[in-house]
Amino acid sequence: MIKAYAANEPGGKLEPFEYDPGELGADEVEIAVDYCGICHSDLSMLNNDWGMTQYPFVPGHEVAGRIAQIGENVTTFSIDDKVGLGWHSAYCHSCDSCHSGDHNLCTTAEGTIVGRHGGFADKVRAEAYSVVKVPEGLEMERAGPLFCGGITVFNPLIQFATRPTDKVAVIGIGGLGHIALQFLKAWGCEVTAFTSSETKKTEALEMGAQQTINSCDEVEIAAVAGTFDLILSTVNVKLDWNLYLQTLKPKGRLHFLGATLDPIDIGVFGLIMGQKSISGSAVGSPTTIATMLDFANQHDVKPIIEKFKFNQVNEAMQHLEDGNANYRIVLER
Amino acid sequence: MIKAYAANEPGGKLEPFEYDPGELGADEVEIAVDYCGICHSDLSMLNNDWGMTQYPFVPGHEVAGRIAQIGENVTTFSIDDKVGLGWHSAYCHSCDSCHSGDHNLCTTAEGTIVGRHGGFADKVRAEAYSVVKVPEGLEMERAGPLFCGGITVFNPLIQFATRPTDKVAVIGIGGLGHIALQFLKAWGCEVTAFTSSETKKTEALEMGAQQTINSCDEVEIAAVAGTFDLILSTVNVKLDWNLYLQTLKPKGRLHFLGATLDPIDIGVFGLIMGQKSISGSAVGSPTTIATMLDFANQHDVKPIIEKFKFNQVNEAMQHLEDGNANYRIVLER
Repeated sequence: MIKAYAANEPGGKLEPFEYDPGELGADEVEIAVDYCGICHSDLSMLNNDWGMTQYPFVPGHEVAGRIAQIGENVTTFSIDDKVGLGWHSAYCHSCDSCHSGDHNLCTTAEGTIVGRHGGFADKVRAEAYSVVKVPEGLEMERAGPLFCGGITVFNPLIQFATRPTDKVAVIGIGGLGHIALQFLKAWGCEVTAFTSSETKKTEALEMGAQQTINSCDEVEIAAVAGTFDLILSTVNVKLDWNLYLQTLKPKGRLHFLGATLDPIDIGVFGLIMGQKSISGSAVGSPTTIATMLDFANQHDVKPIIEKFKFNQVNEAMQHLEDGNANYRIVLER
Repeated sequence: MIKAYAANEPGGKLEPFEYDPGELGADEVEIAVDYCGICHSDLSMLNNDWGMTQYPFVPGHEVAGRIAQIGENVTTFSIDDKVGLGWHSAYCHSCDSCHSGDHNLCTTAEGTIVGRHGGFADKVRAEAYSVVKVPEGLEMERAGPLFCGGITVFNPLIQFATRPTDKVAVIGIGGLGHIALQFLKAWGCEVTAFTSSETKKTEALEMGAQQTINSCDEVEIAAVAGTFDLILSTVNVKLDWNLYLQTLKPKGRLHFLGATLDPIDIGVFGLIMGQKSISGSAVGSPTTIATMLDFANQHDVKPIIEKFKFNQVNEAMQHLEDGNANYRIVLER
């Protein structure tokens, strides 16, 4: 039996919950969960904000742990290997995206917490292919948040071939943005942080930003017109996107990692005049996750975390919902 | 003196108008205008739709003609060389865009009909660098429309490194779209035309489209979900852009060449889920224009034109304004 924490209804408390995972699939592994990060999407799923939650619902898709069981077809892991699991727990392996190495764009990929039980548990299973080894030297308690938050901000740098000579801005210095700043600094880029918080301005400078700009001050924003090659937006609120478009250089890109429910309402002229792009993405492929972990390890990129015990999971979720998370929350035994 | 046609007020008739261009600049050439295409932006400028028209206003930025005078610094042209002139008539040559070969993105580039007199005239002058030779074999009467309409649809194929294996759709089969179909066919792409006109459906198939889809039929559009790598939108009306986004493959791009005044109102989730992009661009650099002309010549890409005499210029403009242009209108002597 797997011992987990599950909610039985939208917005419900997480209660101890046991389930029988059955026989281990031939292509699966079982992970003994040592740590599990909490992502805002765990909260959205708990509340059924996206209309696809099944109850009892076990959140958790920023898993860091050890291989505890290995399916008979799996040759890539040994017992006790340090590993992690992110948003996806299986891929179809037969679509064009999977064949092209873009497994995260597989439209039938299985979500770790979508229609199955996630990592707020002592164990979690997944297709071995979706599980990635954590490199020696990377702290396990900080590994979990890299498997969703980390890969989300790292993936665009790979996808769009960001160069160390690029000027990059990050909008929103929170769970995603603070990791983005560190990756971009390590990438060699000149980095600007857009934030409305005075506290976070100071912290952003410590984490790698060379300058900070008040994300709500139109005058400050207008003053950096034509500056950035790439802007990563990690916020889930509506900002004046046409104003941000103006801060891009010709050929620049405004890339969304945070999902606002409001339409973006961009003017076409703003795109046409400087040949600009807007785009979005979510997480990354297993290969990109492995690349990201290696890069994070090499450059000491570390999510800033607050730890809660697994049995404090409801307090931890409340802390996140209240907007009090000091960057990223991780559950530990 | 240069003999031109000018309007003296927004929406005014074009009347014969003479002006003294003064001494030829050292870096300029003078072109004897044999043909001049009419672009929808000539009409927008005539009507001062963009608030930047100066009167008397001489339209015309799809010039095809011969070199008639050469400035003393110019070494790249000889008298009687066949040449053309498009939207830009000079560049700053000192900004990052110019230095990077993206002269068309130079924010202080001079527009051929912006604050100066264009090609509805017997002669027009421009910085030699902005004038491009027309390759031997390319019909001069069809060359003009390539200098604005042609480069506008060709430039994205260069900018985004479109591959012959890409599936590409063109929305709107008019002055721009019908050239796009021909370029894309020559490029080796599988091409789809979105149009609401029954007549144009047949013509689109003749011009290179492998299939046509009714651009206003939601069911037909939904049936091609996940199909296209690139969509070029050439229309200036608002369509259901979120529906069109769904017709893109993962990593696909919806690219705007036509300027609608309504915001695009794209949902962020639609971008994030398949890592999609939307973007826009206008015309291209002199080097890209030269590449485009060579490619058009090699592959027999020919704008479909209706010809009017220069002294019928008001009838020609009315014909365009009434939406009756059979693809592209060209003025001839």
